[in-house]
Amino acid sequence: MTLPLISSIHNPKAQAWKALSGPARARREQGLFLAEGEHMAGEALKASACRVLLVREDDQERYSALIGQAERREIPVQPLSDRVMAAVCDVRAPQGVAAVCPLPALTKTLETPTVAALEDVQDPGNVGTVLRTLDALGGGGLLITPGCADPFSPKALRASMGAVFRVPVCMAEDLPAALRDYHQRGYRSLAGALDGTPFYDRPPDPEKILVLIGNEGAGLSGPVKALACERFRLPMRGEAESLNAAVACAVMLYDIERRRLEGERVHADPSL
Amino acid sequence: MTLPLISSIHNPKAQAWKALSGPARARREQGLFLAEGEHMAGEALKASACRVLLVREDDQERYSALIGQAERREIPVQPLSDRVMAAVCDVRAPQGVAAVCPLPALTKTLETPTVAALEDVQDPGNVGTVLRTLDALGGGGLLITPGCADPFSPKALRASMGAVFRVPVCMAEDLPAALRDYHQRGYRSLAGALDGTPFYDRPPDPEKILVLIGNEGAGLSGPVKALACERFRLPMRGEAESLNAAVACAVMLYDIERRRLEGERVHADPSL
Repeated sequence: MTLPLISSIHNPKAQAWKALSGPARARREQGLFLAEGEHMAGEALKASACRVLLVREDDQERYSALIGQAERREIPVQPLSDRVMAAVCDVRAPQGVAAVCPLPALTKTLETPTVAALEDVQDPGNVGTVLRTLDALGGGGLLITPGCADPFSPKALRASMGAVFRVPVCMAEDLPAALRDYHQRGYRSLAGALDGTPFYDRPPDPEKILVLIGNEGAGLSGPVKALACERFRLPMRGEAESLNAAVACAVMLYDIERRRLEGERVHADPSL
Repeated sequence: MTLPLISSIHNPKAQAWKALSGPARARREQGLFLAEGEHMAGEALKASACRVLLVREDDQERYSALIGQAERREIPVQPLSDRVMAAVCDVRAPQGVAAVCPLPALTKTLETPTVAALEDVQDPGNVGTVLRTLDALGGGGLLITPGCADPFSPKALRASMGAVFRVPVCMAEDLPAALRDYHQRGYRSLAGALDGTPFYDRPPDPEKILVLIGNEGAGLSGPVKALACERFRLPMRGEAESLNAAVACAVMLYDIERRRLEGERVHADPSL
């Protein structure tokens, strides 16, 4: 179903969609977020997470494949004038297509074998990049604190490359309390910390693992660091004091995956 | 030496500094770049790479330590009015201090044991993050192509956290030709590619290694992929098609470092 063109930026629906690119509150109030661009809109449709497909008036032919997908699923298609599309989207030169998606309910807790827990990671690009890494590795979940950048903000969504549609996200209002709960459920927590022991010398990894990454400037808070089962530092021979938060998280998650793969191979061929 | 206050944004020097936050051409023409903020200006002074220290008029007391460092080295200190500082700096809310630095001459070639070679990596955050990772690992160099984001742009500088002052950067106008040269000088090149063999099963790493990372959307070009000594893919069990370029580069560089550390330990204790 194609809805009537919206060509005024004062249209109340246009105003509401525009607000989705702003602070997190508008997304929470409306229970929606905006997946901008061809790739993200396609991911939203694939994940059955598109409520309305917004298409720039002049781009309906260009995006006929996406429009066809939406129509087959009885998702309304909303043409917007060039000005309205530009007002609604976050990027300077919008691609001309965007999906209005329901904001997923953040799970209360995660059961995934791997959890990346971010304490007040403020850069939306970092939060989105961690989601993308978890999505690539598969089987992981993201735990965030209220001080983290919103994973559903335009910048985080761009960095996540659609991972928000697949990776479960959990909000821990009180990270130390959440950590105690994860520990009781058999998780071991592993903190990236500059004063830790060498990461590559760590003992065998547990089955259920929670990797803790702190704020870009301040690192992990005292209580969280104190609660962590282990504190490890990545090797640094150079002069830089630290790594980018999403990079540190990925290096740790990938080395855990490397060991898991080795373990699976040994298991499959005991002669190794 | 404290220079007379500049309070007009039409001042020719202010105009020239402002241009340093724009496209790369202005930086190349002036042979300068701008290191914004307390951390970066401090790194510039530490690296003896500050020609003029710009300080917001009202922040001279706040940055008295940096000003003292500049004065001891006979580097001129330039007070700017609030409006001029805001015009010169790239960020919306400038910290009130910035260093005008000479643009380092890009080396013609690198001799570092590790080289990260980026082909047309367009996101300045990715280029800066790779520099930061190289800086943390130590002993590496960055090779870029003309299609890469400029490492001296404000966004790349912010992501690099001062690494530009320490990590050598080389520009390869013709990457395939450069690759042949590196191969002749004993480097082995290792490409991250989705159609490669599993990265963690790779043979022992050579002493001189060059890690190739392609453009965010298109990956490595055909000729470069064909020239690479080895093509490896990082394990992915999830649905994501790829990793962020800076993350993929860091995961590979860190695993190479892990093996080097293991090798050093075996060397130090032959009984292992």
